[in-house]
Amino acid sequence: MNQAKLPSWRPGTTRDAIEIFLDDAETLPVERRVAVFDIDGTLWCEKPQYTMVEFLLAELRAAVAGEPSLATRPEYRAALDWDRPAIARLGAVNVVLALIEQHAGITPEVFEARVRAFFSDARHPLRGVPLSQMRYRPMLELIAELRARDFDVYLVTGSGLEFTRAVSADYFGVKPEGVVGSQVGYEFVRGNGSPTLLRTKEIFGDPNEGAAKITNIQRLLGRRPILAAGNSAGDTEMLDYTQAYVGPSLALLVDHDDAEREYEYASIAGTFETSEPITETAGRQGWTVVSMKRDWDMVFADR
Amino acid sequence: MNQAKLPSWRPGTTRDAIEIFLDDAETLPVERRVAVFDIDGTLWCEKPQYTMVEFLLAELRAAVAGEPSLATRPEYRAALDWDRPAIARLGAVNVVLALIEQHAGITPEVFEARVRAFFSDARHPLRGVPLSQMRYRPMLELIAELRARDFDVYLVTGSGLEFTRAVSADYFGVKPEGVVGSQVGYEFVRGNGSPTLLRTKEIFGDPNEGAAKITNIQRLLGRRPILAAGNSAGDTEMLDYTQAYVGPSLALLVDHDDAEREYEYASIAGTFETSEPITETAGRQGWTVVSMKRDWDMVFADR
Repeated sequence: MNQAKLPSWRPGTTRDAIEIFLDDAETLPVERRVAVFDIDGTLWCEKPQYTMVEFLLAELRAAVAGEPSLATRPEYRAALDWDRPAIARLGAVNVVLALIEQHAGITPEVFEARVRAFFSDARHPLRGVPLSQMRYRPMLELIAELRARDFDVYLVTGSGLEFTRAVSADYFGVKPEGVVGSQVGYEFVRGNGSPTLLRTKEIFGDPNEGAAKITNIQRLLGRRPILAAGNSAGDTEMLDYTQAYVGPSLALLVDHDDAEREYEYASIAGTFETSEPITETAGRQGWTVVSMKRDWDMVFADR
Repeated sequence: MNQAKLPSWRPGTTRDAIEIFLDDAETLPVERRVAVFDIDGTLWCEKPQYTMVEFLLAELRAAVAGEPSLATRPEYRAALDWDRPAIARLGAVNVVLALIEQHAGITPEVFEARVRAFFSDARHPLRGVPLSQMRYRPMLELIAELRARDFDVYLVTGSGLEFTRAVSADYFGVKPEGVVGSQVGYEFVRGNGSPTLLRTKEIFGDPNEGAAKITNIQRLLGRRPILAAGNSAGDTEMLDYTQAYVGPSLALLVDHDDAEREYEYASIAGTFETSEPITETAGRQGWTVVSMKRDWDMVFADR
């Protein structure tokens, strides 16, 4: 492979594994060249907080500025203070539901506009840069290289489906229909005037984590991945299912082992089958571990 | 517009309406150029039977040939004989569920292979031609013209999601992720060996008709159509929602008024808000009616 193609990937076993896979995949018909990427912690930084949580909190702060009594709702109070004991006491799910409820009754178009406004203004709380610069440069290079080799590239995230779709094309070149994420309810109403689609306050189906990523990939994309990249316990099933493809396949796990340039942490698989750091799962399952510290020459996109 | 572009469309008010819409849509950013097409009765012939029903019956006949006792199940007996009173007595939904149950426990890949085998062998029961020749030539020309103008084209069908995906690329140039259809359940199993995804015997959510077409378009595609084409009561909401777009929009209703070249019938909107022929709904709602007899110079694709 032309070494100019993945310039931010340092030579080594990880890069070798990617190159071997890319070459092997050339033997497949193009419709089998399907790659899926988790987003938070895989394509962009997920610390100190998931980007979608930052968005929901920004929306809440704006709402409270206009209507201060909102802050007396226990779930909102706990979220605004990021009071972990209170969140645990109320139930994290209930806090998330209360945050999502903020957008009940609006159209997908209005929701999209709000998300876009957030992304155009927001800065990373510690680094102070636009969120687009928190994307991982080596992963953007990998996506570009996959496309150059006639892969279709999709996003499979535990974050909200429409939240992600609002920036999927600008940030990753993925059209809305190429995104798989956690879903809310919708209601089709005729009302007095023209027919409208509105978000409800309900969650639709399971959060897009674990085995739900597989069934949702089937429902929304209808294609079986031969490359998957993730970084957390919620990606376990997606990585295993991808690796089980009979033919060339690659399961990539991003290991956050770079406290200096990014963060050092390991997702603990507690709610799933094991209770071990995800890097140990990777070793047992034979996934390819991407060491941020060792394998990446540059970490962040500068645009 | 270059008249060579839609050669099977006769000059007239319908063709004029399409041309005006196509020119108006050029003013929109490309990401807004979204077109959705119903399939049965809109892109291919749905008589004497929906193609998916033909498939399910062909599968049943093959299964019964190997295991004759299957035919004693009342739902299968009624389906094999196409015994309408018996189907009504058992409940059409239960007959459909029994037919779909044939594929419970198999992977999406195996299901896809069976559907493809059906399409490669099947002939239309009356015309005796391959099913690809039952596609409507004027609609294929319209799809090609939309793509030439940077539209993304999607399929939104009451038939099965995976059934349709098996031929969507070959027949209509639409990738699997561009198809919206009725869904079955899926189960992710680890079993002894490698992780696998299996179809269940359950239906997932509502059949993709009526308002469900709108919510499913949002879930699976995340884009709002500005052109929709349909032919039946189940397309009412999709046509209305499309027409309500603030900007250039076109709602096309195919009127089966050509007993000589195809069939003459009108979908009756009985299960939805009205109980009138769909062509009357079209007149009231201001949709553009495509008369097969008057507007189409050729009806079928010859390949």
